[in-house]
Amino acid sequence: MDQNSLKQMVADEAVKFIKDGMVVGLGSGSTIRLMVDALGQRVKAENLKITCVSTSKYTANQARELGMLVKGIDEVETIDLTIDGADEISDDFDGIKGGGAAHLWEKIVAINSKRNMWIVDEGKLVHQLGEFPLPVEVIPFGSGQLFKKLEAKGYHPTFRMNGDQYLLTDSDNYIIDLHLKHIEAPHALASELISLVGVVEHGLFLDIADYVIVGTQTGIKRMTRDGESFDQLK
Amino acid sequence: MDQNSLKQMVADEAVKFIKDGMVVGLGSGSTIRLMVDALGQRVKAENLKITCVSTSKYTANQARELGMLVKGIDEVETIDLTIDGADEISDDFDGIKGGGAAHLWEKIVAINSKRNMWIVDEGKLVHQLGEFPLPVEVIPFGSGQLFKKLEAKGYHPTFRMNGDQYLLTDSDNYIIDLHLKHIEAPHALASELISLVGVVEHGLFLDIADYVIVGTQTGIKRMTRDGESFDQLK
Repeated sequence: MDQNSLKQMVADEAVKFIKDGMVVGLGSGSTIRLMVDALGQRVKAENLKITCVSTSKYTANQARELGMLVKGIDEVETIDLTIDGADEISDDFDGIKGGGAAHLWEKIVAINSKRNMWIVDEGKLVHQLGEFPLPVEVIPFGSGQLFKKLEAKGYHPTFRMNGDQYLLTDSDNYIIDLHLKHIEAPHALASELISLVGVVEHGLFLDIADYVIVGTQTGIKRMTRDGESFDQLK
Repeated sequence: MDQNSLKQMVADEAVKFIKDGMVVGLGSGSTIRLMVDALGQRVKAENLKITCVSTSKYTANQARELGMLVKGIDEVETIDLTIDGADEISDDFDGIKGGGAAHLWEKIVAINSKRNMWIVDEGKLVHQLGEFPLPVEVIPFGSGQLFKKLEAKGYHPTFRMNGDQYLLTDSDNYIIDLHLKHIEAPHALASELISLVGVVEHGLFLDIADYVIVGTQTGIKRMTRDGESFDQLK
């Protein structure tokens, strides 16, 4: 199976866990695009009454076009389940997100969710985080000075570009990617980065995922944080 | 002397420490408005070649209108001296800033400055921080959820308004003011606030000021962090 088929497989699997009446957080990215399509079909076929909260303007538009009810995060009391992708997931369920530049809103939705489920193809599983560049969302004002500080720390920063312009996030900030290769101590790095003035949010998602669904060549794997398999959500 | 005269007195005093050739960081607020006017006069009278970096769109415009050279923070190598106001300064030289909603850019300029000088009237000196509401700049997305978390912590948050709209900072974020009355442990509070997802920057300025000039009814007091008086900058 190619990567796309694996993504389709986990997308179809994930929507089975959405129940009528839920407030559902919708992630962002290519796997989530497939998941939202699959969810739209289920909502239509079964006339489900669900409320969606989106982590990006892109996903919000997609869900609305499929006829789903999309509310702002500040218009709901809480979120029952958020389904999102990830760029890397380590053995201990920590993740790197932000390859699609949406990790700020993704993290805001995630921390306001009772349960977080990540859906990925098996290529995203790693022993240790860091091969995937770590995205850091930064305030444009002073970002050049911040870049120099990150460079001096040996973090190999690059600005994310959109053609010859700095890429703008949905909050109109810039992204600096850190090319770290190996992240030995994710919690310490997270504390260090968030304390830097001008950093809005980094792409380390630690202690957030409760469930992971992985698409592999031999089928679907459903894992909880404890390393158990699962058939239903707690 | 009224408060305005005290502000004028420290503004006039502060500009004496600016030397030809310096890159000078310009703060924001009512005292700084007076200081920038005084600086503009000195620059003209003495034909000083200084470069200004501003902490707000307002101050940048004021300095440009006075004929001064204003560069962006990412266009200079470093800043020799930044002169800014403060809303409160404690016995140990920690401060609260952000009453003018400019504390994010102010902090970015401050940490990129070799020396920081705050100029205030004596009404800003306190033993312990907290009587002045602590401003927190937050990402609009999810700010309602963040507000509820701050409320649950007992921090008495209020959104800063501009008429019936949320006030927007120069980075197009919102301000939530925390009405704390007493801040027992500023460093611990700073760490807690900056780690909250959606918080861009808080108004606690800790270990930043090197020099403070205070306008009092009995004259000007110039103090270094060590409690010494000073006649020139190190």
